[in-house]
Amino acid sequence: MLNGRVILYTGNGKGKTTAALGLVFRALGHGLRVCVIQFIKGKGEYGERLFAGGLDSLEWHVCGQGFVFKKEENEADRRVAREGFRLAREKIESDLFDLVILDEITYLPHYGFLDVDEIVDLLHQRPPRLHMILTGRNAHRSLIDVADTVTEMDAVKHAYEKGVKAQKGIEF
Amino acid sequence: MLNGRVILYTGNGKGKTTAALGLVFRALGHGLRVCVIQFIKGKGEYGERLFAGGLDSLEWHVCGQGFVFKKEENEADRRVAREGFRLAREKIESDLFDLVILDEITYLPHYGFLDVDEIVDLLHQRPPRLHMILTGRNAHRSLIDVADTVTEMDAVKHAYEKGVKAQKGIEF
Repeated sequence: MLNGRVILYTGNGKGKTTAALGLVFRALGHGLRVCVIQFIKGKGEYGERLFAGGLDSLEWHVCGQGFVFKKEENEADRRVAREGFRLAREKIESDLFDLVILDEITYLPHYGFLDVDEIVDLLHQRPPRLHMILTGRNAHRSLIDVADTVTEMDAVKHAYEKGVKAQKGIEF
Repeated sequence: MLNGRVILYTGNGKGKTTAALGLVFRALGHGLRVCVIQFIKGKGEYGERLFAGGLDSLEWHVCGQGFVFKKEENEADRRVAREGFRLAREKIESDLFDLVILDEITYLPHYGFLDVDEIVDLLHQRPPRLHMILTGRNAHRSLIDVADTVTEMDAVKHAYEKGVKAQKGIEF
């Protein structure tokens, strides 16, 4: 029987990756084993990665190079995205985890780096008890269909709009 | 100069408390000191509380008794809510924290336990560098106005609707 949950956080508002991190926090409290794969965010001193480094039951992979997409020169991005997806498949099929997070994976089909059906198939083929969280803007209809829980984060108001600088511990 | 951020997560979708937890995770990674005050959620084996118990720079307080509000018999709820708010004020004024989370505080004005201006005043009077996160449905317009960043979580689709049981490490 399939007990694992597929959760999708999408929309243009803040809090998608952050909500996924919150579930990591919750899951670790119950002793679950967690794997996070970040597809897009660049390398950097993100608080969550610093914190994750000290935790045994959490694996953290960063594939992306930051938001550098351009239509003309995206071959490197495509390669990184596809390598990340291969890593995701490997981690999911390993059956070593209770929760796997594919952070900002929605951009892969959105930018044409991956057919959305490859993601849908991977979700269907995963170990039945495995919980999965997908995040990112512009989620493809097929991802919404396959997810059990979908939340759309809407930006009602954003500090950046007011010209406020990104704050350590809040935005990164 | 006021550097602290006020972030509000509201709406009917999943991920409000969870996004706040994600910012805890991020903030702890940068060595920030965090205080969480939960106004509504009842006592219980929430993964986040189990995890929080092992962390030095995180204080966690649970004031609420679960969702037991009834119009006829809410004196006990009102007392608990007001005690929680007094605790929040004390923690904020102590200046011992970099981030204070008032989880589900929006319900206090919504249920008439507290005038929303008391919350707005507290936000204005806080130490200038203190980041604050407020969560909960039905956020009062004054809270939206005072916040720097407001995200509305919309439930596009929810597993509960499909009759799926709450899962350890996901919903609690």
